[in-house]
Amino acid sequence: MISRIAILGTGLLGTSVGLALREAGFKGSITGWNRSPEQGQLALKMDAIDSLAVDAIEAAGEAEVTVLAVPIFATLDLMEQLTMNLGGDRLVTDVGSTKLKITQAGMEHFNQMCCPAFLPGHPMAGKERGGALLGDADLFRGAVWLFTDAPGAVRSRRAIELINDWRELVVAMGARTLDLDAARHDELVAWVSHLPQFVSTALSALLEEEVGAAPELKDVGGRALREMTRLGASPYSMWRDIAHTNTEAIERALHELEQRLAHLRENLRTPELRSEFEQANRFRRE
Amino acid sequence: MISRIAILGTGLLGTSVGLALREAGFKGSITGWNRSPEQGQLALKMDAIDSLAVDAIEAAGEAEVTVLAVPIFATLDLMEQLTMNLGGDRLVTDVGSTKLKITQAGMEHFNQMCCPAFLPGHPMAGKERGGALLGDADLFRGAVWLFTDAPGAVRSRRAIELINDWRELVVAMGARTLDLDAARHDELVAWVSHLPQFVSTALSALLEEEVGAAPELKDVGGRALREMTRLGASPYSMWRDIAHTNTEAIERALHELEQRLAHLRENLRTPELRSEFEQANRFRRE
Repeated sequence: MISRIAILGTGLLGTSVGLALREAGFKGSITGWNRSPEQGQLALKMDAIDSLAVDAIEAAGEAEVTVLAVPIFATLDLMEQLTMNLGGDRLVTDVGSTKLKITQAGMEHFNQMCCPAFLPGHPMAGKERGGALLGDADLFRGAVWLFTDAPGAVRSRRAIELINDWRELVVAMGARTLDLDAARHDELVAWVSHLPQFVSTALSALLEEEVGAAPELKDVGGRALREMTRLGASPYSMWRDIAHTNTEAIERALHELEQRLAHLRENLRTPELRSEFEQANRFRRE
Repeated sequence: MISRIAILGTGLLGTSVGLALREAGFKGSITGWNRSPEQGQLALKMDAIDSLAVDAIEAAGEAEVTVLAVPIFATLDLMEQLTMNLGGDRLVTDVGSTKLKITQAGMEHFNQMCCPAFLPGHPMAGKERGGALLGDADLFRGAVWLFTDAPGAVRSRRAIELINDWRELVVAMGARTLDLDAARHDELVAWVSHLPQFVSTALSALLEEEVGAAPELKDVGGRALREMTRLGASPYSMWRDIAHTNTEAIERALHELEQRLAHLRENLRTPELRSEFEQANRFRRE
């Protein structure tokens, strides 16, 4: 069983992982690290971690499992540093939102004898705002936790044990695991996660221009408007790396939606509108 | 005080009005009518109405206040029939989602001496599915109930009393009232209500094409995807008349959103993406 975990990055996801591990009954040590110490102190106060490290690499050096919970480019940076400082019989995993670059880096720098194992992961859970304070022991309950492990990894027996134990902990946190090819993952999330986000951002930005000056008019929209623009609150800092590492798939999805909206616009008064509604209804059939 | 109300149309909205009136303490009679008797029987069983009429015009003839809760073109039809059959000292009001045509019809056929008063209304509340069974006494709680009364109406003292009483009942049902010019109403709801609906329909229809064949992949999207596509379940029958009576404003809103999405797509890797996120964040600032 895993006895020592390090969480590098104690924002919303890292803090939630710590809290969820405790709720799942994990009894080992959880060391945290965060680039800005305030978020780390907060995670410590919330008992998401039981000690706060000053140095990320040192913290990982003392853990059996290291969870990278920082933005994607920061994850790639940490991966490079970690591979030079960690031996075998360790597991490094992550929670990044795009997986192709991270999975490739994992195969390049990890997953060989004498190197730590790297298991690319992506819990499909989040909030429209970040930060330790919103950390939530139930964030992963009912969510899908994707893994995009690459074929051809060479791993020690102990590393394989750690991978199996980590997968069990993920299930104990309330998530369902699903394994996907990394390239297929990035295409899929472009549709079911990135497209909804960028649509909500575009819709919110447009509405700010149209009715932003009259806040009382926002209330008029009610629940439907609130839901459709909730993700509009997501900060750029959470999405920049995603836009940079899954650009082509997101471009394709956005372009398809633009065409779909144009088609709908041109058919507001034709029977074709019925077909579009029926097609949409099928997506939401129980 | 109002003692006799008729609700013509006992779908989701009509049934909810009946239930909410009772919850608000309304003690008078509530007669219902529905084109298909099954929905009427259902509303009766749910105690949303206390009697079911066979004939819409007769039911209205016996009421002081008649609430039209049918689709927009059916509302316009009923208005024509009612004006030939009702005398003055009565109030007819509605809950239709576009208001310019209905308000104009009200000024043409009502709002003159010896004619009933017509007060155009629009509660900003609903569900993505219709029908009496989903009727909800709390549907209007916290919602905005818009009125688009036209200037120049000629009304009896009794009709003015009925209008004031109806407005009070609307507040007692938990809604906040807001008065708007009818043309301004239709422009506003194109942005805050119709645009979100058509975006959700287009997004759901597109996703059905992309991932519909693999239902397990829908779950991957989690809460964000569920919220962004919830309105995708709305049936064409609820939106056809809206698309037909507010076409130009909806076309404009859709076209603007298409351009906004294209702008975002072209800037996934430029600093302009930050501006779009910041603009969206402003719309969702507390």
